[in-house]
Amino acid sequence: MISKVNLAEKFSLFEDLWHPRVVGELNDSYVKLAKLSGEFVWHQHADEDEMFFVIKGTLLIRLRDRDITLEKGEFVVIPKGVEHFPIAKEEVYVLLLEPKSTLHTGDVVTERTVTTIDWV
Amino acid sequence: MISKVNLAEKFSLFEDLWHPRVVGELNDSYVKLAKLSGEFVWHQHADEDEMFFVIKGTLLIRLRDRDITLEKGEFVVIPKGVEHFPIAKEEVYVLLLEPKSTLHTGDVVTERTVTTIDWV
Repeated sequence: MISKVNLAEKFSLFEDLWHPRVVGELNDSYVKLAKLSGEFVWHQHADEDEMFFVIKGTLLIRLRDRDITLEKGEFVVIPKGVEHFPIAKEEVYVLLLEPKSTLHTGDVVTERTVTTIDWV
Repeated sequence: MISKVNLAEKFSLFEDLWHPRVVGELNDSYVKLAKLSGEFVWHQHADEDEMFFVIKGTLLIRLRDRDITLEKGEFVVIPKGVEHFPIAKEEVYVLLLEPKSTLHTGDVVTERTVTTIDWV
């Protein structure tokens, strides 16, 4: 069944932070939505590039050598192997695109790591 | 060099219709932007799923058995092998995500087929 996805509707269906929800799949990747607030953890993905597309708010992505600030309507691709540290000073809505094999905390598994695949 | 991409800025850099521009790459896929107006052609992609995310306007995607209408903030994934026919009654801005191997007219090569990879 081919169904369209309305981002605002999907974002209304969950509230917890740093817990990406799957809203689509194509080829070997998932499209995910997440709500972010505060600081995450330094991590990298050894084999996977990851796209962050900001839907609402301002997302700071700290890299080891500089910072990237993403506003609504902006995206960045973090290449595999690049350490990054997302920070949301206020609540941020983000669309993520990443291979199905990607763990959101990358090489760092903490109590915040979500290992389930949760569709919404 | 990791650079962020501002969609509005990128859309301001080209005017021609049905000519997708590459604005990012991740894993084996390109992120593309396109301006659409009018009707395209019926086509399918034998081996590639394709994502249409509407940034501005209303995009009708006709399938053989029904129509899907996408408004701003909505996306759909057209699975491989599914014939589709995009129609934009007014100008539509769309973000596409598809494997690097994808030809935008799929299995139908016409004078409208763009075979170059044009970054913007």
